[in-house]
Amino acid sequence: MTDRPTIQRILTGISGFDDIAVGGLPASRSTLVSGTTGSGKTLFALEFLARGISGFDQPGVFITFDERPGDLRVNARSLGFDIARWEAEGRWMFVDASLEAGEQTPTVGTYDLGALTARIAHAVRQIGARRVSLDSLGSVFTRFADQDLVRRELYRLAGMLDSLEITSVITTERDADYNGVTRQGVEEFVFDNVVILRHVIRGERRHRTVEIVKFRGATHRTGEWLFTIDPEDGLVVIPVAFLAPRDRASSER
Amino acid sequence: MTDRPTIQRILTGISGFDDIAVGGLPASRSTLVSGTTGSGKTLFALEFLARGISGFDQPGVFITFDERPGDLRVNARSLGFDIARWEAEGRWMFVDASLEAGEQTPTVGTYDLGALTARIAHAVRQIGARRVSLDSLGSVFTRFADQDLVRRELYRLAGMLDSLEITSVITTERDADYNGVTRQGVEEFVFDNVVILRHVIRGERRHRTVEIVKFRGATHRTGEWLFTIDPEDGLVVIPVAFLAPRDRASSER
Amino acid sequence: MTDRPTIQRILTGISGFDDIAVGGLPASRSTLVSGTTGSGKTLFALEFLARGISGFDQPGVFITFDERPGDLRVNARSLGFDIARWEAEGRWMFVDASLEAGEQTPTVGTYDLGALTARIAHAVRQIGARRVSLDSLGSVFTRFADQDLVRRELYRLAGMLDSLEITSVITTERDADYNGVTRQGVEEFVFDNVVILRHVIRGERRHRTVEIVKFRGATHRTGEWLFTIDPEDGLVVIPVAFLAPRDRASSER
Amino acid sequence: MTDRPTIQRILTGISGFDDIAVGGLPASRSTLVSGTTGSGKTLFALEFLARGISGFDQPGVFITFDERPGDLRVNARSLGFDIARWEAEGRWMFVDASLEAGEQTPTVGTYDLGALTARIAHAVRQIGARRVSLDSLGSVFTRFADQDLVRRELYRLAGMLDSLEITSVITTERDADYNGVTRQGVEEFVFDNVVILRHVIRGERRHRTVEIVKFRGATHRTGEWLFTIDPEDGLVVIPVAFLAPRDRASSER
Amino acid sequence: MTDRPTIQRILTGISGFDDIAVGGLPASRSTLVSGTTGSGKTLFALEFLARGISGFDQPGVFITFDERPGDLRVNARSLGFDIARWEAEGRWMFVDASLEAGEQTPTVGTYDLGALTARIAHAVRQIGARRVSLDSLGSVFTRFADQDLVRRELYRLAGMLDSLEITSVITTERDADYNGVTRQGVEEFVFDNVVILRHVIRGERRHRTVEIVKFRGATHRTGEWLFTIDPEDGLVVIPVAFLAPRDRASSER
Amino acid sequence: MTDRPTIQRILTGISGFDDIAVGGLPASRSTLVSGTTGSGKTLFALEFLARGISGFDQPGVFITFDERPGDLRVNARSLGFDIARWEAEGRWMFVDASLEAGEQTPTVGTYDLGALTARIAHAVRQIGARRVSLDSLGSVFTRFADQDLVRRELYRLAGMLDSLEITSVITTERDADYNGVTRQGVEEFVFDNVVILRHVIRGERRHRTVEIVKFRGATHRTGEWLFTIDPEDGLVVIPVAFLAPRDRASSER
Ligand SMILES: Nc1ncnc2c1ncn2[C@@H]1O[C@H](COP(=O)(O)OP(=O)(O)OP(=O)(O)O)[C@@H](O)[C@H]1O
Ligand SMILES: Nc1ncnc2c1ncn2[C@@H]1O[C@H](COP(=O)(O)OP(=O)(O)OP(=O)(O)O)[C@@H](O)[C@H]1O
Ligand SMILES: Nc1ncnc2c1ncn2[C@@H]1O[C@H](COP(=O)(O)OP(=O)(O)OP(=O)(O)O)[C@@H](O)[C@H]1O
Ligand SMILES: Nc1ncnc2c1ncn2[C@@H]1O[C@H](COP(=O)(O)OP(=O)(O)OP(=O)(O)O)[C@@H](O)[C@H]1O
Ligand SMILES: Nc1ncnc2c1ncn2[C@@H]1O[C@H](COP(=O)(O)OP(=O)(O)OP(=O)(O)O)[C@@H](O)[C@H]1O
Ligand SMILES: Nc1ncnc2c1ncn2[C@@H]1O[C@H](COP(=O)(O)OP(=O)(O)OP(=O)(O)O)[C@@H](O)[C@H]1O
Ligand SMILES: [Mg+2]
Ligand SMILES: [Mg+2]
Ligand SMILES: [Mg+2]
Ligand SMILES: [Mg+2]
Ligand SMILES: [Mg+2]
Ligand SMILES: [Mg+2]
Repeated sequence: MTDRPTIQRILTGISGFDDIAVGGLPASRSTLVSGTTGSGKTLFALEFLARGISGFDQPGVFITFDERPGDLRVNARSLGFDIARWEAEGRWMFVDASLEAGEQTPTVGTYDLGALTARIAHAVRQIGARRVSLDSLGSVFTRFADQDLVRRELYRLAGMLDSLEITSVITTERDADYNGVTRQGVEEFVFDNVVILRHVIRGERRHRTVEIVKFRGATHRTGEWLFTIDPEDGLVVIPVAFLAPRDRASSER
Repeated sequence: MTDRPTIQRILTGISGFDDIAVGGLPASRSTLVSGTTGSGKTLFALEFLARGISGFDQPGVFITFDERPGDLRVNARSLGFDIARWEAEGRWMFVDASLEAGEQTPTVGTYDLGALTARIAHAVRQIGARRVSLDSLGSVFTRFADQDLVRRELYRLAGMLDSLEITSVITTERDADYNGVTRQGVEEFVFDNVVILRHVIRGERRHRTVEIVKFRGATHRTGEWLFTIDPEDGLVVIPVAFLAPRDRASSER
Repeated sequence: MTDRPTIQRILTGISGFDDIAVGGLPASRSTLVSGTTGSGKTLFALEFLARGISGFDQPGVFITFDERPGDLRVNARSLGFDIARWEAEGRWMFVDASLEAGEQTPTVGTYDLGALTARIAHAVRQIGARRVSLDSLGSVFTRFADQDLVRRELYRLAGMLDSLEITSVITTERDADYNGVTRQGVEEFVFDNVVILRHVIRGERRHRTVEIVKFRGATHRTGEWLFTIDPEDGLVVIPVAFLAPRDRASSER
Repeated sequence: MTDRPTIQRILTGISGFDDIAVGGLPASRSTLVSGTTGSGKTLFALEFLARGISGFDQPGVFITFDERPGDLRVNARSLGFDIARWEAEGRWMFVDASLEAGEQTPTVGTYDLGALTARIAHAVRQIGARRVSLDSLGSVFTRFADQDLVRRELYRLAGMLDSLEITSVITTERDADYNGVTRQGVEEFVFDNVVILRHVIRGERRHRTVEIVKFRGATHRTGEWLFTIDPEDGLVVIPVAFLAPRDRASSER
Repeated sequence: MTDRPTIQRILTGISGFDDIAVGGLPASRSTLVSGTTGSGKTLFALEFLARGISGFDQPGVFITFDERPGDLRVNARSLGFDIARWEAEGRWMFVDASLEAGEQTPTVGTYDLGALTARIAHAVRQIGARRVSLDSLGSVFTRFADQDLVRRELYRLAGMLDSLEITSVITTERDADYNGVTRQGVEEFVFDNVVILRHVIRGERRHRTVEIVKFRGATHRTGEWLFTIDPEDGLVVIPVAFLAPRDRASSER
Repeated sequence: MTDRPTIQRILTGISGFDDIAVGGLPASRSTLVSGTTGSGKTLFALEFLARGISGFDQPGVFITFDERPGDLRVNARSLGFDIARWEAEGRWMFVDASLEAGEQTPTVGTYDLGALTARIAHAVRQIGARRVSLDSLGSVFTRFADQDLVRRELYRLAGMLDSLEITSVITTERDADYNGVTRQGVEEFVFDNVVILRHVIRGERRHRTVEIVKFRGATHRTGEWLFTIDPEDGLVVIPVAFLAPRDRASSER
C-alpha cells in the first residue's frame, strides 16, 4: 500500500510547522491562513517566503494589501531577513496592492481582480517564483459584500494561482478566535487547505496556537498547537498539544 | 409483523457506517450530508461512489462544484481509488459544475438548475449509474438567497434525482458544529434523509463524529459516533458512541 | 363543581399521548405540532389520522407539502398502516400541496391560501372526515415573510378548519430545540393548542421528548415527556418525566 | 408620615396576587401583562374581569384580538365563570377585534387605532364598566413595525384608557421567558405598570411564575412568585418566592 | 498637590449616592442615567430635583416625555414631595414633552429638537433653575434611528444644557441589565457622566444596584452598589458593594 | 544577532506602560487605543501628549471630537497638567473637530476627511509637534457605515499621519469589554499597533486593564495588565498580570 501516490509537499521552513503538517504544505496549491488581528498572519506569510529563499533557494512574490513594502522591510529586518537585498538579487518581489498605492488597487466594488492577477502572474514569471504570499484578503472584500460574487472571484483567484504552478499562502481576517473560520464564511470552502492562527487567553496570559483545519486529499495532525513569536527566530511551533479553553472551543471554530 | 414491507436500503460500503444506518442508506432516495469545512463531506461523497464501484459494481456519477476533477483524482489516489481507470471503464463519470468550468455553470442568480439537472440525467443514463454524489450545494446557493426560491429549486432537484431511480448523496455546508443543521436552514426539511459530520474539540484534540439526524420512514441508530479518516482506508466509523461536549450539544444541532 | 362543562376531547390513539393530554386533543380545534427536522412531526400527523381510522373509525384528510403521497404510503406501511387500502375505502384522502404538484400549489408570495382551503374543505366533505393533518407549514411561509400577512392567513386557515367541525393537527418547523416555539414566532399565538417535539442530546445519546405547551381553556400535564419511535408501533410516549438539559432549557422554549 | 396620600388600588380578586401587589393593581391606570405563549395571559385578563364582577360587582369590557368570544365563553365555563349570563345581565361586554371579525379590525398597517378606541369607549359607557381587558397587543403590532409609530399609538391608547377612569389589563406577547420584557421592547416603557408571567423549566417540570416588574409611584413585592392554574379556581399565586434558574435569570429580564 | 483645581460638584441629596460619587455629580454638566424599565430612572430624576429644592433651595425644571405631570405629582406625593406647592412657589416647573401633549412634541422623525431646547431654556430662566431633569430620551429616539443624527442632536442638546450653567440628569432606556450601556449605544459616548441603575436577580429575589460608569475628569467610586426604594424615603444607596452575578457581569456592561 | 536593527520606540512616559510595551510605542507610527465608555481612552490620549511635553519636551497636537477643549483643560488640571500654559508656550495645540465646532466638522456622510487632515498637518507643522492624539474615531464613523469606505479613509488617515513623521495615538470606541476589538471591526486591521483598555468586574469591584494586542514588527508583553487612574498621577500600570474572568475572556477579544 505504501506505493500509492500522495499529494506532494513543500517544506515551509517555519520551525516546527512542517511536523504538524506531516511534511509541509501541499505543493502547487493554495493554503488559507486565517486569524484575528495580531495573530501572526503577516509573519506567517512573510516567513513562508523568507524561509523558502534562505533555506531552499525558491524565489517568492509578496502581494501586500495592508502594510507598505517599506514597513514590511523594516519589520522583517529585526528577524534577520534582509528583504531589500533579496529584492536586489531578484529573489523577492513586492506587489503593492495597498489601498494607497493608487491606480493599481483592485476594484473592490465590482470585484474585478483581473488587473491584480495579471500583475501577480507577471511578477511570478519575472523572478521565477515558486512561492507566493497574499496578505490579506480582508482589504479586498468587505464584510457585507455579495457572497456569491466573493465566491466566484476567489475561485478565479485560486484557479489562477494553481495554474501558475506555485505554492501560495493567502491570509484572511476573522473577528473572534472561536467563531467561524473566516469573516466572510466563504473563503474556507473555496481553498483546498486551511490553517487557523489564534491568540487566546488561558490562565493569566495569552497563548498563540496554530491549527490545520483541513488539507484536501492529504493527511495532517489535528488539534491546536502552541507557538511563540521569537524576536529573533520568528514563528516557532512547539510540539505540545494545546488544551483548548473548556467552555466554547468544543463546538465552535 | 415481520412481513411488513420496509424501505429498501443500499449498503454504502463505508466502514462501520452501514451498522449505525441499520442496513445502509434508504435506496432510490437522496441523503443530505452536512458539515463544516474539512469535516469530511467530500470524502463521504467520494467513498460512497468508490465503494459502490469496487464492492457492488454499481457505476456512479460525481457532480463537483468546489474541486476540479483533476484534483479529486489525485486526492482519491492516495486512498487507493483509481478514478481515472474507472472513468475509462465507464463506471465513473464526472460532471464538472465548478464555477470555473465556464458556460455549464448553473445560473446562480435565478436558480435555474435546469441545465445542470439535464446534464446529470444524461450522465446517469450514459453509464447506467446507480449512485450519484453532488459536492456541494454551498456553491449553488448563497447565504442570503431567497429561501422560498431555494426551497423550490431543491424540491425540483430532489424530485429529479428520485425519478432517476438512483441513490444520491448531496453535501452541504454549515458554519458551526452545533448550530442549526445547514447554513440555509432549508435543505434539511426538503431532503428525506440527513447526516451530519462534525469535527469537534474534546480535551486536547479534535474528534470527528457522524450522526444520522433522520431517515424518513426508516429506522437508524441515534446519537453521535466517532470516526477517523485513515490515510489508507478513508472513513472508518467506530462503533463507540461519542459523549457530546457537555455545554451546548444538548439543545442545539 | 364536577358538573361544570369542559372542552370536549378527542383521543388521538397515539400510545401514551392521551394520558399527558388528559383525555386527548381538544376536539373541533386545531393543534400546532412544532419540531426540528427529524423530530417526528410527520409521524405524529400521520398516526393521528391512522389511529383515528383504525381505532375510532374516523375518516381523515392528509394535506402534504413536503413529501409526496407515494413516499408517505411507503413510509407508513412499515408501521403497519395500509393507507392505500384506506384510500380505496374512502377513509383516507391525500391533498397533495407539495411544491412539485403543479398548478395547485398555494401562491406563496401573496399568501393566498384560498385555493388550498377550498380543496381541504372539499376533501373533508367528500369522505366525511373527522380529522385533518397538515404537514408542514414550513413550505408555505418562508422565514423572512411579512409577519403581519402570515398572521392574517393563519387566522383565516385556523378559522376555516374550526368551521369544518374537524379536529386538526398542523405541523411547523423550528431550527433549534430550545429557542422560541416556531420559526416564524407567530404561529404559536394564533393556534389554540401547541405541542413541541424535541430530539435532544443527553449523556451519550439523543432522546426524543414531547411537551404540551398550551391547551387554551383546557387542562394538560406540563413538562417534557420521553417518547420513542418504535419501528412497529410508531410513537410511544413513556409516562416518565424528562429531566431537561440543565444549562439552557430552564429559560427558553 | 402615614398621612401621605398614596396611589389608590383595586383588588383583582385573583387568589394571592393582591398580596404580592400590596393591595391590588393601581386603580384607574393600565397594567401591561407580558408572557410567552401559554403562560396564562388570557386567563389573567379574563379572571381580572370575572373576579371584578363576581366579587366586587364591577362591570367589565373584554377586547379580544386572538380568540373568538364563543371560544372564550367555553373556556371560561370550566372555571365556573358564566360569561353568557353576565352578558345578558349587562355586566360583561365583548369587543370582538379579532382579525376575522371583518370591517371592525384595527388598521394594522397604519396603526390607526381610532375606530377601536371609539368602540371601547362606547362599550365602557354602555355598561358602566370599571374594568377593561385587552388580549392581546401582539395581533395589532407586528414585529418589525416602526417603533416610533407603535410608541405613539400606545401612548394614545393608554391615555384614552386612563381618561375613561377604568382600570385596565393589557396583555402582550414575548418570545422567551428571560429575554427583554416584551417583543417590541417599547410597550414596557409606555405603560405605568408591568407584570410578567413565565413558564420555566426547573428540575423535571415546568413552573409558572408571576413577577411585578414595576408599579410607577407605588410599592409592590419584588421577585418571581409561583402560581398554578387550577382547573377549578384558575390562577392561584402561592406566597412562596421562586428561586430563579441560576444561569441566566440573574442578568436578564 | 492639594491645591490643584478639581471639577466642582453638586450634592444630589439622594441618600448615600453622594458618597459613592465622592461629593455629588459634576456641577454644570449633564449626567446620563441609564436603566431597564422599573429600575428607578424616573425616581432618580425626580429626587434629584426634589432634594435640590428641599435641601439646597435650588429651583428645578423637569422635562417629562413618558408620564404626564399630573401622574408625577401623585407619584411624588407618597414620597412626601409636594410638587404642586413648589410649582406655586416658582421653584419647580414642568415641561410637558409627552407624545400626547400636542403641538409641542419634538419632531421625532427629523430630530429637530430646536423647539424643545427653546422651551427648556425658557423655563430655566423663568424660575432661575439650577437643576434640570429630562425623563427619558427613549421617547425621542427610536431604536433604528440614524446613529449619526442621534449623535449630532445629543451633542447639541448636551451643549445647550451645559451653556445654561445648570446641572442636569438625563435618563435613557436599556433592554437588559448587563448588555451595553444604552439602547442606542451612542448616548454614553456623548455625555460626560454616566450612571447605570440595575434591577438584577440574585438568589431568590431581585436587587437594585447603582454604578457610576464614568465621570469625565473626576474621581468616583467604582463597582455596583446596592440601593432600595423606600416607600417614604425614596432612593437609599447602601454603602455595601454588590457582588455581581458571576456568570456574565464580568465581561459585559 | 544583537546588531539587527529593530523598530524605534518612543517612551510614552505613562507610568508602567513603557515596561509592558518593552520600550514604548513604535515611533513614527500610529497606535489605536480601543475601549468602552469610561475605560480611560481620553486620559491615555491626553497623558501621551502631556508626558511628552513635560518629560521629553516634545510638542503635541490634540484633535478632539467628543469633548470641547475647555472641558479638557479643566479635566487635565486636576492631574496637574496645565494645558493652557502649554498652549501659550506653543507646545500644545488643540484641533477642535467636535460636532459643535461648526463648519470645520469632517463630512461624516461622505467620509471626506480631507479638510481635517489638512488642519492636522497644519497644526503639526506650526508647533513642530512630535506627538499627535485623536480622540475619538467614534464620532467620525457611525456603526452601519460602509465598511469599505471606512477602511479606505482610515488608510488615508494613517498614511497621512505616518508621513508627518509623528507618533500618534488614536482612540476608538467599543461596546463590550470582550467582544471584538472595535465597533466597526475594521480599524484594528488598518493600524499597525493596537492597545485595548478594559473596565471589567471581578469579584465585588471593577478592575481596569490594558492589553497590547499587536505591534506590527515589534515585540511587546502579552496579556492583560492592571492599571488604576490615580486622581493625581493619572494612569498607573501595575506590573501584575491580570487573571482574566474565566468564562469568556478565553476565546474572545
Ligand atoms: N487522502 C487523505 N489521506 C489522509 N487524510 C485525508 C485524505 N483526504 C482527506 N483527508 C482528511 O480529511 C479532511 C477533509 O476532507 P474533505 O475534503 O472530505 O472535507 P470537506 O468536508 O469536503 O471539506 P470542504 O468544506 O473543504 O469541502 C482533510 O482535512 C484531511 O484531514
Ligand atoms: N417507519 C419507521 N420506522 C422506524 N423509525 C421511523 C420510521 N419512520 C420514521 N422513523 C423515525 O422517525 C424519524 C423522523 O420522522 P418524521 O419524518 O416524522 O420527522 P419530521 O419531524 O417530520 O421531519 P422533517 O422535518 O424531515 O419533516 C426518522 O428519522 C426515524 O428515526
Ligand atoms: N379551563 C382551564 N382549566 C385548566 N387549565 C387551563 C384552563 N384554561 C387554561 N388553562 C391552562 O392555562 C394555559 C394557558 O392559558 P392562556 O390561554 O391564558 O395562556 P396565554 O398566555 O393567553 O396564551 P396565548 O399566547 O396562547 O394567548 C393552558 O395551556 C392550560 O395549561
Ligand atoms: N412612591 C413609591 N413608593 C414605593 N415604591 C416606589 C414608589 N415609586 C416608585 N417605586 C418603585 O420604583 C419602581 C420604578 O420606579 P421608576 O418609575 O422610577 O422606574 P423607571 O426606571 O423610571 O421605569 P420606566 O422605564 O417605567 O420609566 C417601581 O416599580 C416601584 O417598585
Ligand atoms: N482627573 C481625574 N481624577 C480622577 N479620576 C479621573 C480623572 N479623570 C478621569 N478619571 C477617571 O477616568 C474615567 C474615564 O476617563 P476617560 O474620560 O479617559 O474615559 P474614556 O474612555 O475617554 O471615556 P469616553 O468613552 O466617555 O470618552 C473616569 O470615569 C474617572 O473614573
Ligand atoms: N519582529 C518582531 N519581533 C518580535 N515580535 C514580533 C515581531 N513582529 C511581529 N511580532 C509579534 O507578532 C504580532 C503580530 O504579528 P503580525 O503582524 O504577523 O500579525 P497579523 O495577524 O498579520 O496582524 P494584522 O491583522 O494586524 O495584519 C505582533 O503583535 C508582535 O507581538
Ligand atoms: Mg497582518
Ligand atoms: Mg469538500
Ligand atoms: Mg416531516
Ligand atoms: Mg392568550
Ligand atoms: Mg420612568
Ligand atoms: Mg473619551
